[in-house]
Amino acid sequence: MMNKSIRDHGVTIGFMPPGKNNTLTDVQGVKVGHHTLSEGSQQTGVTAILPHGRNLFREKLIASSHIINGFGKTTGTIQLNELGTLETPIVLTNTFGVGAAFDAVVDYTLKNNPEIGRETGTVNPVIGECNDMWLNDIRERSVQKEHITEALDNADVDFEEGCVGAGTGMLCYSMKGGIGSASRIVELAAGEFTVGVLTLTNFGKLSDLLIDGNPFGQQLKEKILSKEDEKDRGSVMVIIATDLPVSERQLNRILKRSVTGLSRTGSIIGNGSGEVVIGFSTANEIPHEKSDTPLTLRMIHEEDMDQAFRAVGEAAEEAVLESLVKATPIIGRDGHERPTLTDLLETHNLSL
Amino acid sequence: MMNKSIRDHGVTIGFMPPGKNNTLTDVQGVKVGHHTLSEGSQQTGVTAILPHGRNLFREKLIASSHIINGFGKTTGTIQLNELGTLETPIVLTNTFGVGAAFDAVVDYTLKNNPEIGRETGTVNPVIGECNDMWLNDIRERSVQKEHITEALDNADVDFEEGCVGAGTGMLCYSMKGGIGSASRIVELAAGEFTVGVLTLTNFGKLSDLLIDGNPFGQQLKEKILSKEDEKDRGSVMVIIATDLPVSERQLNRILKRSVTGLSRTGSIIGNGSGEVVIGFSTANEIPHEKSDTPLTLRMIHEEDMDQAFRAVGEAAEEAVLESLVKATPIIGRDGHERPTLTDLLETHNLSL
Amino acid sequence: MMNKSIRDHGVTIGFMPPGKNNTLTDVQGVKVGHHTLSEGSQQTGVTAILPHGRNLFREKLIASSHIINGFGKTTGTIQLNELGTLETPIVLTNTFGVGAAFDAVVDYTLKNNPEIGRETGTVNPVIGECNDMWLNDIRERSVQKEHITEALDNADVDFEEGCVGAGTGMLCYSMKGGIGSASRIVELAAGEFTVGVLTLTNFGKLSDLLIDGNPFGQQLKEKILSKEDEKDRGSVMVIIATDLPVSERQLNRILKRSVTGLSRTGSIIGNGSGEVVIGFSTANEIPHEKSDTPLTLRMIHEEDMDQAFRAVGEAAEEAVLESLVKATPIIGRDGHERPTLTDLLETHNLSL
Amino acid sequence: MMNKSIRDHGVTIGFMPPGKNNTLTDVQGVKVGHHTLSEGSQQTGVTAILPHGRNLFREKLIASSHIINGFGKTTGTIQLNELGTLETPIVLTNTFGVGAAFDAVVDYTLKNNPEIGRETGTVNPVIGECNDMWLNDIRERSVQKEHITEALDNADVDFEEGCVGAGTGMLCYSMKGGIGSASRIVELAAGEFTVGVLTLTNFGKLSDLLIDGNPFGQQLKEKILSKEDEKDRGSVMVIIATDLPVSERQLNRILKRSVTGLSRTGSIIGNGSGEVVIGFSTANEIPHEKSDTPLTLRMIHEEDMDQAFRAVGEAAEEAVLESLVKATPIIGRDGHERPTLTDLLETHNLSL
Repeated sequence: MMNKSIRDHGVTIGFMPPGKNNTLTDVQGVKVGHHTLSEGSQQTGVTAILPHGRNLFREKLIASSHIINGFGKTTGTIQLNELGTLETPIVLTNTFGVGAAFDAVVDYTLKNNPEIGRETGTVNPVIGECNDMWLNDIRERSVQKEHITEALDNADVDFEEGCVGAGTGMLCYSMKGGIGSASRIVELAAGEFTVGVLTLTNFGKLSDLLIDGNPFGQQLKEKILSKEDEKDRGSVMVIIATDLPVSERQLNRILKRSVTGLSRTGSIIGNGSGEVVIGFSTANEIPHEKSDTPLTLRMIHEEDMDQAFRAVGEAAEEAVLESLVKATPIIGRDGHERPTLTDLLETHNLSL
Repeated sequence: MMNKSIRDHGVTIGFMPPGKNNTLTDVQGVKVGHHTLSEGSQQTGVTAILPHGRNLFREKLIASSHIINGFGKTTGTIQLNELGTLETPIVLTNTFGVGAAFDAVVDYTLKNNPEIGRETGTVNPVIGECNDMWLNDIRERSVQKEHITEALDNADVDFEEGCVGAGTGMLCYSMKGGIGSASRIVELAAGEFTVGVLTLTNFGKLSDLLIDGNPFGQQLKEKILSKEDEKDRGSVMVIIATDLPVSERQLNRILKRSVTGLSRTGSIIGNGSGEVVIGFSTANEIPHEKSDTPLTLRMIHEEDMDQAFRAVGEAAEEAVLESLVKATPIIGRDGHERPTLTDLLETHNLSL
Repeated sequence: MMNKSIRDHGVTIGFMPPGKNNTLTDVQGVKVGHHTLSEGSQQTGVTAILPHGRNLFREKLIASSHIINGFGKTTGTIQLNELGTLETPIVLTNTFGVGAAFDAVVDYTLKNNPEIGRETGTVNPVIGECNDMWLNDIRERSVQKEHITEALDNADVDFEEGCVGAGTGMLCYSMKGGIGSASRIVELAAGEFTVGVLTLTNFGKLSDLLIDGNPFGQQLKEKILSKEDEKDRGSVMVIIATDLPVSERQLNRILKRSVTGLSRTGSIIGNGSGEVVIGFSTANEIPHEKSDTPLTLRMIHEEDMDQAFRAVGEAAEEAVLESLVKATPIIGRDGHERPTLTDLLETHNLSL
Repeated sequence: MMNKSIRDHGVTIGFMPPGKNNTLTDVQGVKVGHHTLSEGSQQTGVTAILPHGRNLFREKLIASSHIINGFGKTTGTIQLNELGTLETPIVLTNTFGVGAAFDAVVDYTLKNNPEIGRETGTVNPVIGECNDMWLNDIRERSVQKEHITEALDNADVDFEEGCVGAGTGMLCYSMKGGIGSASRIVELAAGEFTVGVLTLTNFGKLSDLLIDGNPFGQQLKEKILSKEDEKDRGSVMVIIATDLPVSERQLNRILKRSVTGLSRTGSIIGNGSGEVVIGFSTANEIPHEKSDTPLTLRMIHEEDMDQAFRAVGEAAEEAVLESLVKATPIIGRDGHERPTLTDLLETHNLSL
């Protein structure tokens, strides 16, 4: 059973209504799968995001990426931005799992597309990562191809948050981090749309943590953590899904606004933090095969963007907080551990 | 006499110490000048930032720019980023004053550099702007070349904040905005350095305003403003000065962090908001004339950047708040006006 | 009467057929106007490109820009790239005419749009420039607002090339440069489309000049020019129009290919050369006013882009050569002059 | 024994003198190693570029990358551009070998740096690729970690060009492509410097090929190739090394000029071509460990850049041609083959 959500703690971020499950998969068709490796000094894993249930290589989606801070090893963004399309699931794992993930996504795509490397070209795997070296023995290289395949196969609308999949060994604001997700409903004249955010959180130091504007990190810090514990290692991956009809330029503008949410949790966007945002819209499909007539792309008017901007900021802020409250205790490499926010609240009889 | 600062109101943003005057000009050599046009429907002006007191065309400074949101008409950033140097003062004015400001900066530079257009090439004016059309009749085109010259001539270490210069007619968080400034001291093993920020604020809607994490805008909103007043028009210019020895790449990384401060005041980076950051370092001069030996650029180690990142976030947040508390009442075009934060606090007997 | 074209000289660039007039205005709706200032030390002017004959502020076009080398002072590209639309004519002039051109384009747009600065925001003038200081006394600041207005008013499908408008005082490959234009027809399954290019040439040194791969500059150089004359000052503006249905991302990809054409005339993309490409597609209009339904953007399949890439490279190469053969003698500041290609061919009894 | 060079064929590209061996390794300290897999349907391999002989993770070099066209899967450029440094060898292989190469470079770096993942963070592998699917059965995934290790271990100042390493199965201008290299000497007042270029060529169609401006592809095409053979599949990787003291911004400007050389061989920068440029300067080392004093970076004056721009254009053009003349016959997957330029010249009794 998962921990209580941040809303269960009485904290409501922003003004907009969340989607049905308040997660990334509120966007119709999106699924998330995890594979978790949690044993001894192996505290890591894989999280896969599947944008739709059909053949994504043949029915690509409008997509974009944005680098908040480039101290990271994400692959696939060069082609994503050149062509404005996503043609594979997005896979998140630890930094040294990128090679295996690249291989696994190639395998996955080759299996379903025998024409690749024959009648048509290759495929562009999109892999994101954070460095979980404090809890996980990253030098062990434990993430293997089959683990990525597991995560892809496990993908579902319902998925766990907290210390699962790629989030297993991550730290956030000097506590245990991991996977968090949230969503917002955008109401336009043209209808109701959803913006979903999933974060893999591995950044920040405790003293900076803000919870809905409240400097909670300062309060916690005085009670419990030594200065030692406060090193800011790490990064954050932000995955954004929406069914808003947007062009890749518009989507990129939406992606950029995730930084407002991260900032409001206290982030200074540290030097060593790879902060990469990758997003897609399910509203327009781009066929792999050329047709004889121009494609038709639906896009909202630019003046309608503000709602999406607000939605992504709110959902990103909430997703980070979710990753904190959903985190569960992990004892990893060399007996390393970090408190979870939930345990701290309980031990010190605090409320958010 | 200027209004009280945000610190006088008891609000301290962040953890780092401010510089001597807590303004942009705490960076040695930097001066700021205003020219204000405030009469009837003419509520606008010019603010000029002079990076050093010598001939900037001949002794250029390392500089960079960053676009948070590009709905703006700033000039000069193409060359700034290609060459990594600033060779003119930075001038801020209203959107339709950009042409006059370009002309005036060319005049200013030609006067001091007779070789331009003869033995050497041209010059790259850097002009920023926001749209003050609510209080100022921007169609009147009141900013003229001589007004920019005045602002350049007035530049001093001491300068006013609030509704002066380019800030005269600006709105921020649905109240009166304008010029605000703050600074932070960065202590490295190599010595003590300063990061200064000046903002020209013209963005946001009241209900979003956060003061040091406190949703003050919500509180104010319920008391006083009609929904009408809450349209988010506008933009923000952020000018950053530092004496940190940094390369143009490093400076660009610093500039990017100003968004954390803006976000923490409540910004969603609205669609219509031109949010442009321009910065320079006084630590390395790049001579106009070629010499026979390579130049030597001093730069801090990347791991020392975090302090600068934190500094710029804190100073940007404080500068925005300063622009609010320093603002004074303006009645402009068609009798338009907007409350100032200071008046609202007094009238409603509130404190920050 | 204009000089012979490069095709009249027997030189055919590339494989694709040109449009009807082999100029930018082969794209339906596009017009070009000049205003020339050619007297004594005043050898400069203005060239205006009007993308369509209606109210461009209200019916914007998909547009993009690309910086080949950023040693230039072009304005308007920040917003152009953020929003992907063009809302004013494109004006080209000399470097110090940018302020006047900005003002004139604001005037022009205000006149036709009384709601600007009242019910709606401002406007984003797009101004390009090159430095004509060798022939023109650029310190004189002879370009005034009314000259831009003249160029806008003069715009027509038929327009002159060579030493007219903004091209009056420019140099290219150490000879007289100026305005050149060319076009190509792209045949897709969906129909026949046009790619038009207009260049304002002010770059290169004679010894590098290639004419259809032939090192003609070497041949000429040995005969006629002193080493003195060979300094590479300058820049090139490339304006691209098309009726291909493309997104702003696709258009940007097309713009980037103009460098292949410039390179094949011998350009090394010199340090001091501002090389800026601005383009628009007339195939999709973006209304200023928000509607309640999403917009529909037509775009070709990515695999059809190669033809557009080839077209723009061929047309850019030919446009540069056109600017050379169409140039006519100019005696300017301090009696400065430069040979025209046509005169050199005649004097030395050479053929291309 | 390698085939004759393009200079042996009597073709001299440009005006600048080549370095001692006219290859990338003319830059002091640079080494290149190959591992070739050429048997049956396995026609692929690995090429590794080692920037210096010491521990690159601890003594990083100023580096940059530039995307000419982003239809490619290169990894590592996000961090390269954020931090401006290279900390691993650059490895080139086929598109589906990227995962194995990422893994192998991690292994390689971990072996030499036991503090990674313990006292310090991770490492950023830089891997480039082209798609060799016509001659190589890319679905087989034949490139394994040990092949990359072999290439790294084989690295030397002397290295083969043509159909070796990553170049084994590549096609260029519809003929056999592969590895080509060239260099140029830059003479500045401050001394003599070298710019070296290595290309992995896999782009273009025969009818576009220019040899020193001569439309040789047209001539060949009429004689020998069917239209079938003329599909433009593919990409090009350009690796640039220099000992010029340059900042990462300056290096990026140099990298961008490689497109002039590619264009002059006839490239239209096709839609499907991943064209990625990666470069480094050996003149400034950036230590991994922080020191207490600022770093000192030496950089040339911007006006000295033109020589480097010319050098990289010339060397890139020559490197592409070298890859063509050095190519040797390969029979690959399903008996596929492509003529080599050398064979065509001989068979048809042609000379360049």
